[in-house]
Amino acid sequence: MEEIRETIKNTNLKFAEVFQRGDAAAVAALYTADARLLPPGAPMMSGTEAIRAFWQGAMNLGIKEATLESIDVESSDGSDLATEIGKFTLSMETRGGERVAQMGKYVVLWKNDAGVWKLHADIWNTNAPA
Amino acid sequence: MEEIRETIKNTNLKFAEVFQRGDAAAVAALYTADARLLPPGAPMMSGTEAIRAFWQGAMNLGIKEATLESIDVESSDGSDLATEIGKFTLSMETRGGERVAQMGKYVVLWKNDAGVWKLHADIWNTNAPA
Repeated sequence: MEEIRETIKNTNLKFAEVFQRGDAAAVAALYTADARLLPPGAPMMSGTEAIRAFWQGAMNLGIKEATLESIDVESSDGSDLATEIGKFTLSMETRGGERVAQMGKYVVLWKNDAGVWKLHADIWNTNAPA
Repeated sequence: MEEIRETIKNTNLKFAEVFQRGDAAAVAALYTADARLLPPGAPMMSGTEAIRAFWQGAMNLGIKEATLESIDVESSDGSDLATEIGKFTLSMETRGGERVAQMGKYVVLWKNDAGVWKLHADIWNTNAPA
């Protein structure tokens, strides 16, 4: 369990790093090939290309940073699945150049994909009322 | 796995049934004692009383029905954890008496709690842009 927690933490750091670089393909590569993305305000989508395009769209809208903080990871011994609950902050740059932060929470289903823990389902929402 | 899927399906039917009856305490009883609820537009909350109060508030706002449809359930053999991905419909009655539906998707972490599968983490969001 401690090892899975550590791996998830490192992958979350990697997520933030490639996101900040604006590399949507590298973000999508952190997901399994048949992963599901369940974003607020859009239908469920699935697969590497859809996930890449979604994150590319978010970057185009001005989202500059995504930071992820694990709160809890649950997994059974020897399982190739783990569920993470966490908090995120999205940092967005408005057209006027102002930085605004959006805070929320997420649940990620992680899957051990041939030795590499990847995001297999990813859902989130924001804390502030719409 | 088939048995877990069936149990989850039945608990989802039960959820819809007690919800429609307006019984927020019975809804909350379907969750583990330390379950986490991650609703859109509000911070994460935890525990039976917070979950009961949340669903009571939703009922007070005019939400009359909640239907849940499993799309996928993932669990490792013998694990006491399972993750469900699904779609929901909330049916709301406006003050004018009109029925409107809100559609979305959810991820639920299920936990086998002394032989009974209960919701242990519950997060959702809507498909329509805010």
